[in-house]
Formats: sequence, C-alpha cells, structure tokens
Amino acid sequence: MAAKRLGLLAGGGELPLLVARAARAQGYSVVSIALTDTTPTALQGISERMYRLSPGQAHRILSTLRQERISEVLLIGKVNKEILFERFRFDLRALRLLFRLPNRDDDTILAAIVTELEGEGFHVLPPLHFLADQVPSKGVLTRRRPTRREWADIEYGVPLAREIGRLGIGQTIVVRDQMVLAVEALEGTDETIRRGCALGKEGAVVVKVSRPQQDLRLDMPTVGLQTIRCLAEGKAAALAIEAEKTLLVHGEEMLEEAERAGLSVVAV
Amino acid sequence: MAAKRLGLLAGGGELPLLVARAARAQGYSVVSIALTDTTPTALQGISERMYRLSPGQAHRILSTLRQERISEVLLIGKVNKEILFERFRFDLRALRLLFRLPNRDDDTILAAIVTELEGEGFHVLPPLHFLADQVPSKGVLTRRRPTRREWADIEYGVPLAREIGRLGIGQTIVVRDQMVLAVEALEGTDETIRRGCALGKEGAVVVKVSRPQQDLRLDMPTVGLQTIRCLAEGKAAALAIEAEKTLLVHGEEMLEEAERAGLSVVAV
Repeated sequence: MAAKRLGLLAGGGELPLLVARAARAQGYSVVSIALTDTTPTALQGISERMYRLSPGQAHRILSTLRQERISEVLLIGKVNKEILFERFRFDLRALRLLFRLPNRDDDTILAAIVTELEGEGFHVLPPLHFLADQVPSKGVLTRRRPTRREWADIEYGVPLAREIGRLGIGQTIVVRDQMVLAVEALEGTDETIRRGCALGKEGAVVVKVSRPQQDLRLDMPTVGLQTIRCLAEGKAAALAIEAEKTLLVHGEEMLEEAERAGLSVVAV
Repeated sequence: MAAKRLGLLAGGGELPLLVARAARAQGYSVVSIALTDTTPTALQGISERMYRLSPGQAHRILSTLRQERISEVLLIGKVNKEILFERFRFDLRALRLLFRLPNRDDDTILAAIVTELEGEGFHVLPPLHFLADQVPSKGVLTRRRPTRREWADIEYGVPLAREIGRLGIGQTIVVRDQMVLAVEALEGTDETIRRGCALGKEGAVVVKVSRPQQDLRLDMPTVGLQTIRCLAEGKAAALAIEAEKTLLVHGEEMLEEAERAGLSVVAV
C-alpha cells in the first residue's frame, strides 16, 4: 500500500517544520514546495523532495503536485503579501486568479487559492489536522494571572480586535487603559506590538484573535517565542489569544519565556 | 457694550492661531489657555491674555475662565493623549473626571470635558463657527483627478475608515490595491501615512474621515501642509477627505503643494 502523500505549500517561519514532522509521525510522506526565501531549509531534510517555486507560479505549482501524485495539500507558514506588488513574476494562471479577486484581503486571497486547488481535485487539510496539541483551551496559561486592570483591557480589546478582523484588516491590537495604542494592518504582528508598547510606555496588553470569517484550514492566528519577546522588550503586561483557534509554536518554551518576563498569557 | 469674549482652550499646531485670528476679526476678544508645550507662542500676541495650564489642572482652568468673565469656550488644537499617562500632574477634579470615564476614546474624553464645561455654565462653540471657509464641499480639489485604480481604493477605503472611526480607534487608513496597508491608532495621522506608504512602496491612497459619532464642536478631522508632505514623501497617489467635515489648514497652500507633488485630493 502506498504511503499517504502530503503536498506542503510552505511559507516562512517554523510552522512548516512542525507540520512536516507531525505529518511524518502520522505516516505521511511529505513533498514540499518552498514558496518564499524564508521557508526553512531544514524542510528539505524532512521532505521526500522539496521544490522552490514563487507563489506567482500557479501553473508550475499545480503541475508539480500532480506529477508527485499528491492528493492532500496543506498551506502553512508566512507568505509576505508584498509579493502581490511583484506581478511581473506571476504566470498567466496566477494573474487571472489575482484579477478575479473582488479585493485583496487575506481571506479573499486564500479562499481563491483553496477554490483553485480544490477545483483541480486536491483536498486541502487544516494545520490543526497535525498540530491539534499546540492549540490551547480557555484559561490562564501562565502562573501569573492578569490584574484587574489587565482584565479590563482584555475585555475592552477582544471585541475590538474581532471587529478589525471582521473588516479584513488585521488580527492584533495593543491596548492600555482602554485605549487602542496600535492596530495591525500590513506591517504584521511583531511590528504592531513594538509600536503599541512604545506608545504605551509599559503595561500594554496585546490581543490577537482570528477573523470571524477566517477559514482555519488556511490560516490560523499564531503566536510564538518571537511574540513573547516583542512583548517583553516592550514591557507589556499581558497577551490574550483565542482558545481553540490559536497555534502556540513551541508552546512550552514560549510559556517559560513568558513566565521569566512576568507576562500573563490568557486564552479567552 | 462689552466685547464678546472667547475662552480658547488651545493645544498644539496652527489651528489655535487661525481660530484666534478669525474670532478677533468677528469682534471677539480672546483669552487663551495654552494646554501643551506645542501651543504656538504667537497665540500670545493675538490674545488679550494667555495662561499656561496643564490639561490635568481642571480646577484652575475653570476658575481662570470664570475670573476672565468668559461665557463662550472653544477647544482647538492637538493635545497628545499620552498626557493621560502622567496622572501625577492631575488635580482632584481632573482625576474624578478621568476615573468616571467608561473608556478613554477621544470621543469619550472630549464629551466628558464638554459636559463638565457646560455644567459650569460655559457655552462650547464649534471651530466651524470661525473656520467655515476652510471646509471643502464635495468634489475633486486638485487639477489631477484620481485614476480609476485610485477611485477603487478610495471607494474601498472610505467605509473601512468610517468603521475604524466608529470603533473609536482612529480616523486615517492607508490603502493600496484594495488592501489596507496601515490603520491609525495612537501614533497619529502623519506616522500612519509614513508607515502605510513605506509598506505600499508607491501609489498609496490615504483616507481620513470623521468618526460617525464625532462631535464637531470638539474635534474635526484636519489636514494641512504637513499631511500633503507626508503623502508626497511616501510617493502616495491620492488623499480622500470628508466633504463638509474636514478642516483644511492653509487650504490654498496645501492644494498648491499637492499639485506640485502630482497628488489628487478629493472631498467625498
């Protein structure tokens, strides 16, 4: 019997490695397509084969998956949206896809890619399929619980962050004393945390949630060691994430680092 | 008959000067209270008297206005919200006001200040009372009209900017190709424009609108020469503002600068 085969469309960061390892542990053989310069090279060692293709080479990506006799596909890792400004690197298929979009929200782009993949007969798996144990349940994840003031900021921030997500703008906001210090758009989570913490001086509360319409097959809110380091450097007080919907990358190390920095991490 | 007397609670920027000059031209004598280090010193020359008080000295501000036999008050100019983090400088009355607030949105803070002033018998005038000719009607204000792509970004951006305003977060967003590049929170308009333009490389569209619940007596969206310069330096393509609700500071110079930079400015 042939092994199960997973096509991993891999952006940057560590998540592609975590998924590839977990997939292998579940008996898959993994064929990776590295989509960005920041896709970890270590992915090669875990994969049966690894290709390097630009996200704009839609035709090559699809034909590679077919040649490799892939039926299950998983999208994981950070692909910088600025790639959209480099259209000269796009093939005709990718350009057609791009110009059919009603807008360029993350959700819109990703949904179009999934429709395209499923239209070609591929089955798109959610990262949760392999990373279920990296997703926290509701509760305070650190020894330190949020203070009353921090809870007030979390309660103020969560619905606002959801609205920002609903609008397709970003997932992260930084709050202090029930004021919004920073809102994430294209600059990304870390930069948003840095800016907000600098404006709030210290004691800021960072809230990161999913978009209500977010398809968790494609894209899940993720926090990791780097997130915690940004909070610690910015003298933030607490991080609130969404229970059951947020990936903790290297969760144990991450929470140890949070303890050391005196941070409170809460899944709401 | 005694001259009409205006109490000008003045923050930073040029607007206090413009209001004071216009008020004098309408026969008012002006007593100014400089609230920030950035309140222009030139205000002294236009005012009958000028006091320097911190926004946290609520009791002194009210007693000064009473001593000066002021009945009409106008709030104008930028007061950095970071002042809220310096509570040790607040008197009891200001602290009471601050701690009664349900949150620290601009609108909430300003509404509480107005309630306080009106409760003491002062009448709060809108800046429009003196600056009506600085507010544009609907239309394209520059010779260059927006391109079709720029219009698409304006149409995409305006309702999103309104939502950001409705949430009490900020008034400005930067858009390109129907993606939100940057959202304003506490960092202010200029910094938001710089960040968004840097992320969008060039051709960004900046949208600045009022908050739906914004009380124009207190606070109006304002654009000026500095706004245009930020757009020009960031190689932006267009600025969209709200007709009838946005103050153009030194509108003529501003639009000349926009023409030179090849920008399109639209009141929607």
